[in-house]
Amino acid sequence: MMEQVTVIKIGGNIIDNESALADFLKAFAATPGKKILIHGGGKLATRLAEQMEVPQQMIDGRRITDAETLKIVTMVYAGYINKNIVAQLQAQGVNALGLCGADGNLVLAHKRTGAAHDYGFVGDVDAVNSTLLQQLLDAGTTIVIAPITHDGQGQLLNTNADTMAQAIAQGLGSHYAVNLVYSFEKAGVLLDANDDNTVIPTINPDTYTRLKTEGAIFAGMIPKLDNAFAALAKGVSRVIIGKAQELPQLIAGTSGTTIQNG
Amino acid sequence: MMEQVTVIKIGGNIIDNESALADFLKAFAATPGKKILIHGGGKLATRLAEQMEVPQQMIDGRRITDAETLKIVTMVYAGYINKNIVAQLQAQGVNALGLCGADGNLVLAHKRTGAAHDYGFVGDVDAVNSTLLQQLLDAGTTIVIAPITHDGQGQLLNTNADTMAQAIAQGLGSHYAVNLVYSFEKAGVLLDANDDNTVIPTINPDTYTRLKTEGAIFAGMIPKLDNAFAALAKGVSRVIIGKAQELPQLIAGTSGTTIQNG
Repeated sequence: MMEQVTVIKIGGNIIDNESALADFLKAFAATPGKKILIHGGGKLATRLAEQMEVPQQMIDGRRITDAETLKIVTMVYAGYINKNIVAQLQAQGVNALGLCGADGNLVLAHKRTGAAHDYGFVGDVDAVNSTLLQQLLDAGTTIVIAPITHDGQGQLLNTNADTMAQAIAQGLGSHYAVNLVYSFEKAGVLLDANDDNTVIPTINPDTYTRLKTEGAIFAGMIPKLDNAFAALAKGVSRVIIGKAQELPQLIAGTSGTTIQNG
Repeated sequence: MMEQVTVIKIGGNIIDNESALADFLKAFAATPGKKILIHGGGKLATRLAEQMEVPQQMIDGRRITDAETLKIVTMVYAGYINKNIVAQLQAQGVNALGLCGADGNLVLAHKRTGAAHDYGFVGDVDAVNSTLLQQLLDAGTTIVIAPITHDGQGQLLNTNADTMAQAIAQGLGSHYAVNLVYSFEKAGVLLDANDDNTVIPTINPDTYTRLKTEGAIFAGMIPKLDNAFAALAKGVSRVIIGKAQELPQLIAGTSGTTIQNG
């Protein structure tokens, strides 16, 4: 049986809230076994852009990463947030080490081209250096990852944190039994987007097809679920979606939504 | 004979100049053997503070690191500069990996207290995790270090980059023959601070005593030289001071000032 690794993505809303983040990091520190944390950047990058008077261009609700915005997200994600999380985990007795995708060629990407719009310095993932992850995990290190990648030609790129978590989890799938946890403000995959009491506890390919046919799943969840099944197809053991405040229960399978084959 | 490691500190003026930095990184990439780069932050942190309208308090020409300034230096040093250097080195075929002192408990420090003035969140170094450095060097990694440390209690601290380089070099002294290179805008230790043609090629404890007695050394160099001899006393093999543009010559001993025992 393969050793387990837990890959946890923590959403933006928790990062914006100092005490919620501290609580989450305590629960993360208490999670047994090998683990990796991937964080987004919350609203801090937006606030810094406002302070620096860097206008944020949006297309269809998505931010365009121009050169100044790339500088800001690199500073906020790979600098401020990553290093503060590392320092807080060290204080909890966890030997945390923070990286972005450029470090040790951890996540190689290419600038997105050919899309309907030019989103700027946005990176789509090409490869994950799973050897480096294995070496660090085997040395007892807990890895904290900021969603900044590079193209191997000296250019940093902004990459979606959900995508980053999925790529990291898939990269480890042939060496470990990987549990990929998306923790955020919602209780899981919901039948009614506004009612946390309508969590679907488990979804497999059959139930997913049925739920989609019935139109029972909140439309906003479909891309997340498609990505979850793509991760399962590429060697991830389980994907779990649920509330960041319930991390131990998510991992135990008593809270949130577990997505798995069969 | 012990294997060599070259620890290079790159000064602020080079970091502020994009093409000078690119040239330096090419020379650094071409430096043979195991190597570590420690960088300061140049004027970027000051410029960001101005943009964010964070007033910079100074005492005797030294910046006070209040909470907002700590946030800025963490973003600029550990985020923007560190990750851009890593991406540029990766593009040169160097497997660079960027860390600050909190990562993997690399450099543990304590907040400076008891000084004549309160400089804020400034860290004096207590310990270096040389095991982590050895593991990464042995794995073929080139380590790029930002001068941000932590106190083990969750607090990040701003630490002088020269001090950081000295601590890292000393931490490696029992495992490797360490060459510590301080590269900056001056040609070395000068007899006349304004004349780059007055470089003193080598200094040992005897010549240092004589030069000090004669008042022949520019006063601003005395603390740097005292630190260099302290590093030699703690296991560093050689300290080299000179121009960043002459890195290969500094390492070859044909340029700059070499400080060594005997």
